[in-house]
Amino acid sequence: MAAESDTVRFALSARAARTGPQPISFLMRQAVENPSLISLAAGLVDYESLPVQPSRRGFERVLDDGRGRHTLQYGTTIGDATLRQRLLEHLANLDGIAPAAFDATADDMVIANGSQQLLFLLTEVLVDPGDIVITAAPSYFVYTGTLQTFGAQVRCVDMDEHGMVPAALEAVLERLEAEGELGRVKIVYVCDYFQNPTGLTLAVERRAELLRIVQRYSTGHRILLIEDAAYRELSYGDDPPPSIKSHDKSNACVALLQTFSKPFAPGLKIGYGLLPRDLVEPVVLQKGNHDFGSANLCQQLALAAMESGDYQRHVEALCRRYRAKRDAMLEALERELGDFEPGNTQWTRPGGGLYVYLTLPERFDAGPHGALFDRAIGEGVLYVPGTYCFGPDPDRVAPSNTMRLSFGVCSIEQIREGIARLARAIRAIDTGQ
Amino acid sequence: MAAESDTVRFALSARAARTGPQPISFLMRQAVENPSLISLAAGLVDYESLPVQPSRRGFERVLDDGRGRHTLQYGTTIGDATLRQRLLEHLANLDGIAPAAFDATADDMVIANGSQQLLFLLTEVLVDPGDIVITAAPSYFVYTGTLQTFGAQVRCVDMDEHGMVPAALEAVLERLEAEGELGRVKIVYVCDYFQNPTGLTLAVERRAELLRIVQRYSTGHRILLIEDAAYRELSYGDDPPPSIKSHDKSNACVALLQTFSKPFAPGLKIGYGLLPRDLVEPVVLQKGNHDFGSANLCQQLALAAMESGDYQRHVEALCRRYRAKRDAMLEALERELGDFEPGNTQWTRPGGGLYVYLTLPERFDAGPHGALFDRAIGEGVLYVPGTYCFGPDPDRVAPSNTMRLSFGVCSIEQIREGIARLARAIRAIDTGQ
Repeated sequence: MAAESDTVRFALSARAARTGPQPISFLMRQAVENPSLISLAAGLVDYESLPVQPSRRGFERVLDDGRGRHTLQYGTTIGDATLRQRLLEHLANLDGIAPAAFDATADDMVIANGSQQLLFLLTEVLVDPGDIVITAAPSYFVYTGTLQTFGAQVRCVDMDEHGMVPAALEAVLERLEAEGELGRVKIVYVCDYFQNPTGLTLAVERRAELLRIVQRYSTGHRILLIEDAAYRELSYGDDPPPSIKSHDKSNACVALLQTFSKPFAPGLKIGYGLLPRDLVEPVVLQKGNHDFGSANLCQQLALAAMESGDYQRHVEALCRRYRAKRDAMLEALERELGDFEPGNTQWTRPGGGLYVYLTLPERFDAGPHGALFDRAIGEGVLYVPGTYCFGPDPDRVAPSNTMRLSFGVCSIEQIREGIARLARAIRAIDTGQ
Repeated sequence: MAAESDTVRFALSARAARTGPQPISFLMRQAVENPSLISLAAGLVDYESLPVQPSRRGFERVLDDGRGRHTLQYGTTIGDATLRQRLLEHLANLDGIAPAAFDATADDMVIANGSQQLLFLLTEVLVDPGDIVITAAPSYFVYTGTLQTFGAQVRCVDMDEHGMVPAALEAVLERLEAEGELGRVKIVYVCDYFQNPTGLTLAVERRAELLRIVQRYSTGHRILLIEDAAYRELSYGDDPPPSIKSHDKSNACVALLQTFSKPFAPGLKIGYGLLPRDLVEPVVLQKGNHDFGSANLCQQLALAAMESGDYQRHVEALCRRYRAKRDAMLEALERELGDFEPGNTQWTRPGGGLYVYLTLPERFDAGPHGALFDRAIGEGVLYVPGTYCFGPDPDRVAPSNTMRLSFGVCSIEQIREGIARLARAIRAIDTGQ
């Protein structure tokens, strides 16, 4: 009997059937199979600067002063109330406003298992199969995979060096309205600070404008604008502009998502979102189904780091470190590729974050099955093909001549060597060697 | 414009529309509004025994010996490999067998954000709306809520003092087959050690039998048997029987789920599952969408506690503590209700876990909107109405004369006083006072 049933397969759900392997798995396999590779693909954070001493102090604090048992007990589904209040103040401080200016309270703040879980939960409560989510072109590829699982349609909006182009968003919405599809548009997703994958930031003058466009097309139902600000605090120059959320005066349209993973430590797996008031309950109910609350221990450690000032000090030290890495990557690109068809070979010069986005002349195929990708591995360097970063928009063809280069995890020496290897691969492909 | 869009509502997904408030929210609100209540409803764990010192030692270990940065970095979606190997050995040890006897490896072990997340993920990859999940009557009510979100149909199977009745499971499957519905049956869910809510354990001789029945009805597709063993290690007498999983020799049919929340600390929010091999990839792909991995920090702490022996010592101390609480609750029930229609008033005598299940004479309505519930709150005690624990099976009427009483979080004094208050409420309702 047992043997017989073993040959019968599980019948997977429609959701599971829609879920393919994520590109990151493919890239990680390359890295594992080629251990001498320099990975400019990895989305990990700088290793040396991970906050071991601040975490030790944090644990002393949360385990020693009478909070220890509380820290080890279950928390609530929405997350620790003291932490949520602190995070509201933190967001207001980043925007240079008083917390009350958000017209939001700590009750509108939800803690999650990284900001990715909030992306999942917000999509889960709004998107049915066939619904439409609008993203930038290019956009964060893990979220594109999530949208595929939900059976969402994706429409992409052009970016320029100042981020998503408002007129292009308006044109997409206008066309969807003309096609009678506006009723299916549920979410506009914008990663607006040092975007993954381009490193670009949405310009200050476009922020209220994007919001107004989303509001204007919220006729039959309200469209959610997700502001993914995961990289916001990794800023290496002037302060970045205030959030789109700061323009959402009645806390109705924008979900602002941030995380401890990039500015502090991914190992805590704590993200947070300031959500439109009437989405808090649906999201928390779903989170109740998922896990009824993120690890209380990690929340208390995050809170302790904020209370002690260790968090802010760590962010400042981290920014100095990443700035040097970014500079090293930009210098290496200039050195290695500055003379390579300058008009057609371009890269972004991000003011923060972890990524530089490289565009090659159009004849190059930098995709995962293209010649350059294999040649780069042959030279000993790995990148993220830009094709992964374009949602499956039926109205567009994804360019195949771009790539994401991360300076987060490599040392400065590795960055220099990695870009040199990449340039060798590019030149070799180009000369047919 | 903004003001106008505020009045337009978000259009929630079908999943969100199917998701109601969980009973636990209602119960927590009662507790908050009545702070002097003794809660025999709370599913929290004993507060005083939470492992503060073991956790301090664990943090010293994970942050001090060169593992610190690794601990604070991203982990993998499936979970830490060393921890997964350790947990495989742990499960084998609990079953008194060698790890190889499972015909499973650490690659079949998945770490999650509590075992609840594994319940969610397994359901997500198998269940489409209208599919059927079979549970015991009564069963774990949070999972019932999850099934509602997925649009699953629920069929309930009778239990007796030895757990789910195999002949009753067979009868349900037989009827579904006769009705042409067998193709929709995806999961049989069994909480088989010190069950939530009854405290009862599936008898040793029923374990292989339940598995054989599930296998026999796995004709068109394989039916998954979920063995939720969250309370397994909280055993206060003889060792409980080996897992159902230990009978699943080819690792094809049973997902065995356990957790650190009950035997160690809920604040870590770490659960784990030994899954049929061909479900690992679908589950991990979905987890990639959810959060691409549970908090690495918590995983490392769990591993450190296992490596140092602190885990096992803590479990032993915890069992002594809970045994005394269980005894206090059973003695109080005997004292307060032993003479109250002995034939028609019954309670379980669990060998472990956190719950006693009380059945009153049939004329009592112990439901959340019944007279007894309000009267109990008036007396200052809260319980979980048993009606929450019955899935919406169209073929059955859920009894309303039962309740779950938890001895986990209250002190022995509170348990005695709580049962005394409950008995007063019962007698008062009965005499119409």
